[in-house]
Amino acid sequence: MTESMEREEQKRLQEQLINLLKENEIDAFREEFLDMHPYDQGQFFEELDEDLRFALYEMLSPEEMANIFEQVEVPEEDYQDLLSEMHPMFAADMLAEMSTDDAVDVLNELDKEQVASYLTIMDEEAADEIKELLHYEEYTAGSIMTTEFIAIKANQTVRSAMQILRREAPGAETIYYTFVVDEQKHLVGVISLRDLIVADEETMISDVMSERVVAVSVAEDQEEVARIMRDYNFLALPVVDFQQHLLGIITVDDVIDVMDEEASDDYSKLAGISDVDDTAGNSPFGAAKKRLPWLIILLFLGMMTASLIGRFEDTLNQVAILAIFIPLIGGMAGNTGTQALAVAVRGIATGEIQEEGKLKLLVREALTGVITGGSCGIAVTLVVYVWQGDFILGALVGISVFATLIVATLTGAFIPLFMHRLKIDPAVASGPFITTINDLISILIYFGLATTFMSYLK
Amino acid sequence: MTESMEREEQKRLQEQLINLLKENEIDAFREEFLDMHPYDQGQFFEELDEDLRFALYEMLSPEEMANIFEQVEVPEEDYQDLLSEMHPMFAADMLAEMSTDDAVDVLNELDKEQVASYLTIMDEEAADEIKELLHYEEYTAGSIMTTEFIAIKANQTVRSAMQILRREAPGAETIYYTFVVDEQKHLVGVISLRDLIVADEETMISDVMSERVVAVSVAEDQEEVARIMRDYNFLALPVVDFQQHLLGIITVDDVIDVMDEEASDDYSKLAGISDVDDTAGNSPFGAAKKRLPWLIILLFLGMMTASLIGRFEDTLNQVAILAIFIPLIGGMAGNTGTQALAVAVRGIATGEIQEEGKLKLLVREALTGVITGGSCGIAVTLVVYVWQGDFILGALVGISVFATLIVATLTGAFIPLFMHRLKIDPAVASGPFITTINDLISILIYFGLATTFMSYLK
Repeated sequence: MTESMEREEQKRLQEQLINLLKENEIDAFREEFLDMHPYDQGQFFEELDEDLRFALYEMLSPEEMANIFEQVEVPEEDYQDLLSEMHPMFAADMLAEMSTDDAVDVLNELDKEQVASYLTIMDEEAADEIKELLHYEEYTAGSIMTTEFIAIKANQTVRSAMQILRREAPGAETIYYTFVVDEQKHLVGVISLRDLIVADEETMISDVMSERVVAVSVAEDQEEVARIMRDYNFLALPVVDFQQHLLGIITVDDVIDVMDEEASDDYSKLAGISDVDDTAGNSPFGAAKKRLPWLIILLFLGMMTASLIGRFEDTLNQVAILAIFIPLIGGMAGNTGTQALAVAVRGIATGEIQEEGKLKLLVREALTGVITGGSCGIAVTLVVYVWQGDFILGALVGISVFATLIVATLTGAFIPLFMHRLKIDPAVASGPFITTINDLISILIYFGLATTFMSYLK
Repeated sequence: MTESMEREEQKRLQEQLINLLKENEIDAFREEFLDMHPYDQGQFFEELDEDLRFALYEMLSPEEMANIFEQVEVPEEDYQDLLSEMHPMFAADMLAEMSTDDAVDVLNELDKEQVASYLTIMDEEAADEIKELLHYEEYTAGSIMTTEFIAIKANQTVRSAMQILRREAPGAETIYYTFVVDEQKHLVGVISLRDLIVADEETMISDVMSERVVAVSVAEDQEEVARIMRDYNFLALPVVDFQQHLLGIITVDDVIDVMDEEASDDYSKLAGISDVDDTAGNSPFGAAKKRLPWLIILLFLGMMTASLIGRFEDTLNQVAILAIFIPLIGGMAGNTGTQALAVAVRGIATGEIQEEGKLKLLVREALTGVITGGSCGIAVTLVVYVWQGDFILGALVGISVFATLIVATLTGAFIPLFMHRLKIDPAVASGPFITTINDLISILIYFGLATTFMSYLK
């Protein structure tokens, strides 16, 4: 009830804003629009057509536009188009006003030449900060950190630290955690604003700070960064180089985005699509483009399966009933493999499976395969026996299910571990891929057994 | 390199701590142990056997144990066992000292009688707070909020608000966002600590607070709560009843846990396992128990597929070659269905697909099916023609793939939307389920066509 009323209200506001834009009512538009949360401003912006975007650029300052642009989520290739709609100077100023980490994310989507030209006309200080961050590889701590943090010295009083915080608060990404450095900029401690405001104003920072500060290396994988922040409930995490110099901080909102991205990524790969995030807004051609690569690969893998079965054509010609259990055995193999795969991929992603735990996992999966295979094998034997009245056929299908489930479970667990060892993202050995491999294995087992024992079949 | 050194270091520390526990060296143990981060304490605790846990309970206060217990993640059924190892008074004190929301999470796993007995012997104030939260349904905002928040009045000065904050900081879940209420406890505004410390001390709160405060209803779905906090980058979100009374707050760390849980949940369901989180630590029996339900269901669905193919036994007997394409067609149908399902489930989960967007999604999926089906169908026809030298067979398989892909894509998108309408979690229409349904559909199409046009086949 309330939710649909809220949506009505939003729609009405949106229409009103669009009218103000069209009628060029700058003051009225600014009053309404700037009162909205930046996220809602971003949502509004994403809905506009080109003409209205031009009108909007006219009405806002680069700084106001920066707040919106930080929130905008469009397909990567669209950032270039949006920026080239703006006056180059306006675009450069806007990029300079954005949070450094967000500006870098946008610049990473552009051509090198275009990046260079924006950096040239930009305010020098902002350009330098951005250049520093542009060096870091994607998906590392360096690529998601910001350099807009506040650092204080250990030999200050709480009072002087609070003065720095008050002064720097407007430009800093967070002031709730302040990191303490020595004269050579080495990270030596951390203090929360919570501890600062309850501390006596004359105390030295060194007496109230915590020296047990967890930091990550600038080259650390962003997934590991997310894991640490989640486990330790940090709101900010310092990033250091190999000599413990403080380079930047990562805040919890960036980590939430990373978690979302990584989870979505593993999920998409399990489903065999390149990415799922913005698909809902895409055209059928866009959606088909994302899905076809997998389907075509599977088609050719499926041809291999077909040619494998083709080799058993004699067996099939003599006992056509064998064919009816192909989907059952293949399906069971595919599913149990996907289950084992999913557990292994998630275990690797969350850091639960360490190097030493790999053998343990494989042994456990083999035993799991024996248990599930045994249970399903017996069930299948009985059902087929009762249904077809042929115990040998039942036993043949049952034994195939048993053997298939053990092998498929092991394959499902082994392949991601092996890929992880080769430093390939294990999620690419995704659901459909493992399903097809296990299809092949299951058919080999089933028809191999059937051909061997054919003389016993009715 | 550094990472493996760190792990060595941790292992050494862990062994040292276990020795201190065994030798009952209380002081030395406490000094080392209490210096660790609560998360690491929790990890250490999870590794201990029963005897060592008893030794630990002897050495720690209920309050110290509460910090650890907030971090412990064990299978739900184990919480009861852990609590019954402790002296009831110790357990009750520990629960009272925990964050109310975490204590409620633990109590939700226990028998009603046991909950009642702990609440009876517990400190009355803590018991009342817990009782209030126990009412809320799982997976709602009420179930993840905490009542340990600080509220201030609009007609206070900044100075007096800061005094309240300093006094209440130790017991509050966060002090970085403070919510402002009127005399009747209605939520009227919010102010961040950042704004408080830069404001002049004599200003009235009503002059510096923001009145545009986003709040969620106590009955709101936790997934929606997570979405709001992610989109708006909030560190804390107020929870209100239908009359806008402030009931509690939700902090960002709780939301990170929710996001993790929900993403993991969708992922597990796509893979056909009940849950994936702690599986890596489980025994083979535990793992088999989680996977078998799905496998058994699939077995019986597979039997249906087999009996469906059985109906076409005559066709099969005459043209055995038809059998070799069963896995290919079934596999394509299963995969395209899973792709469409994954997009729809994620779209629903992230709130991208609203009520009005459903028809649009179905139309888009149908068109996507036509494009992918057309491409794959033509490819299959050509490959089979070249390979088997039989154009009619090629066309038969190709047309089956074309028709199957359209139907399977639509089914994959329709089923989760339909379940969402029925207020069932769409993720339960998971990967293996949709795969089997599409297996059935594809076989019906394939053998239906084959039987109709059999006279044309070589």
